[in-house]
Amino acid sequence: MPKRLGKQTVAIESDVSIAASAAIVGVKEGEGPLSRYFDTIIEDAEWGEESWEKTENKMQREAVLTALKKGNVLESQLHYLFAGDLLNQCIGSTFGLREMGVPFFGLFGACSTMAESISLAAMLTDGGFSDYSACVTSSHFCTAERQFRMPLEYGGQRTPTSQWTVTGSGAAIVASGGSGPYIRQVTTGKIVDLGVKDPNNMGSAMAPAAVDTLTAHFQDTGKTPNDYDLIVTGDLGIVGKEITVEMLGKNGYKLGKYDDCGCMIFDLENQDVSAGGSGCGCSAATLCGYILRNMGVGTDSEIPQPPKFNNVLFVATGALMSPTSMLQGESIPAIAHAVAISNN
Amino acid sequence: MPKRLGKQTVAIESDVSIAASAAIVGVKEGEGPLSRYFDTIIEDAEWGEESWEKTENKMQREAVLTALKKGNVLESQLHYLFAGDLLNQCIGSTFGLREMGVPFFGLFGACSTMAESISLAAMLTDGGFSDYSACVTSSHFCTAERQFRMPLEYGGQRTPTSQWTVTGSGAAIVASGGSGPYIRQVTTGKIVDLGVKDPNNMGSAMAPAAVDTLTAHFQDTGKTPNDYDLIVTGDLGIVGKEITVEMLGKNGYKLGKYDDCGCMIFDLENQDVSAGGSGCGCSAATLCGYILRNMGVGTDSEIPQPPKFNNVLFVATGALMSPTSMLQGESIPAIAHAVAISNN
Repeated sequence: MPKRLGKQTVAIESDVSIAASAAIVGVKEGEGPLSRYFDTIIEDAEWGEESWEKTENKMQREAVLTALKKGNVLESQLHYLFAGDLLNQCIGSTFGLREMGVPFFGLFGACSTMAESISLAAMLTDGGFSDYSACVTSSHFCTAERQFRMPLEYGGQRTPTSQWTVTGSGAAIVASGGSGPYIRQVTTGKIVDLGVKDPNNMGSAMAPAAVDTLTAHFQDTGKTPNDYDLIVTGDLGIVGKEITVEMLGKNGYKLGKYDDCGCMIFDLENQDVSAGGSGCGCSAATLCGYILRNMGVGTDSEIPQPPKFNNVLFVATGALMSPTSMLQGESIPAIAHAVAISNN
Repeated sequence: MPKRLGKQTVAIESDVSIAASAAIVGVKEGEGPLSRYFDTIIEDAEWGEESWEKTENKMQREAVLTALKKGNVLESQLHYLFAGDLLNQCIGSTFGLREMGVPFFGLFGACSTMAESISLAAMLTDGGFSDYSACVTSSHFCTAERQFRMPLEYGGQRTPTSQWTVTGSGAAIVASGGSGPYIRQVTTGKIVDLGVKDPNNMGSAMAPAAVDTLTAHFQDTGKTPNDYDLIVTGDLGIVGKEITVEMLGKNGYKLGKYDDCGCMIFDLENQDVSAGGSGCGCSAATLCGYILRNMGVGTDSEIPQPPKFNNVLFVATGALMSPTSMLQGESIPAIAHAVAISNN
């Protein structure tokens, strides 16, 4: 089988597995429906640190260390760290991981970073360059609010289409060989910008990118939505999820078992999060907590056997604007990266 | 030969070449000693755009398009774009390249981004995932000043150890096969933080990272500085360059033909740039303009044959702090990525 499958997809020919994963989340996420799948629920927004940025640093570091421990992989066995986050100059990652002594690739894919990191780790592992690598990203409600929106003390009103930035971090250990699940295909997104200009409606801005990448994935691989027992975007929220279903239908693909991390991580009826969750940590914690544990990653008394999911298409989405670009009247470019993960 | 050479270095076993490169710079850089090696010198800080951010976008886009044209590579042949910059949420890259329709990996390595992008492109190409990819980064004096320091109108004084952000962009086309020069080894940096806290002395903060990566490269490969006819860091400037020579000497390596992009791109005596150039565009434009053209990339009437350089170790350095981290009293983590480029 050739490695390149069409314009945007590559096959990972060797067995490249996710050996372990870990998710650490905040109080609100810990009160949500995925609560029991998270490794750590921090006790407050600070987690003993003197700034929220330092809390986010600690979440990334602890997520990696927890995943390493769960996978019985030593820090010294890691060949690469792939990490990024939403903070200016990605200080969630650089300060969080600076003591680890592992070759480091800094990424910026906004909320698509978890899929971007796994994509690159899978290709480098298949290429023979890495035995073990760690992929990690994070977001924190308080660091994101003050950087992108308003001081929290201001108490600004939220629009119905706005999303709630998840406080959370997810880490996955990508390994050469192993017992699965395996990363089988990687579909890398193009930047898509259909002209949406409302930063309080990022689901609408990101949905076309998700549709573009999903369509490319199906075209490149010849697969259909029925080949997956879970297709999961993130973090589009309610608004973006509906647009995705509609647009993909027009492209001839009827999504079957489909959900969105932004809709899964919170109880949308009762948790007052408007259109759902967002932030790099949203899809990362949902993948590294709920999804991968339900694919059989790690030994886990919480999760029934056999695995609930055997074929998952994880499509993390990112909005690539900044406060400066918004003030300059620009629209919101978006991107989505897809990773096909399978127990077969 | 095994692909992994020690803890931080990998060998690129197949012929992965730099098929073409292009550099676009600002007025001040166009008045410097490397002037004749740049493809375009823009006429003013705006280059016909309504904001400096849009100018930076245009520089990245035009650098990629110029490199493609010089290499006779079509945009549709590109399998990946690897890009990043210094602006919050990397809007220099995302807005600059959003119309290209090429699968996109966003990177954040601060001023190390050029080497990070070539490292990843080389590994993905060797792994069989890419035939052609483009690596690009940029910085702009005016976008960086207002984001990181002061409004330009404020007219703030500069310290002697401060560096001048280069207005420039460099793009390189990485190809499978080709006539060289070839990327032979990649040494990926760890984050190094020795506690420097002065954002006006980033050369001192970054030099230990350069030393760490250079030492790892020599240890992993068994090479010595004499194996290269140019070792080039960037952008350490005068202060960081001196520290690098001294620290590397203590590690037992006497640098021979060594220079720093921050010292090369400006006339340090006469151009009033304090300790030298900085910014993602500094090492990118120096590599993609001066160095690669002097290695024989592209056909070029400006450059004498045979090539001036046959074996170059390009070590781009990045300071991974943000204004928020500085205000919170943090020190400056730094990183350096090395790429060995050879005509052999």
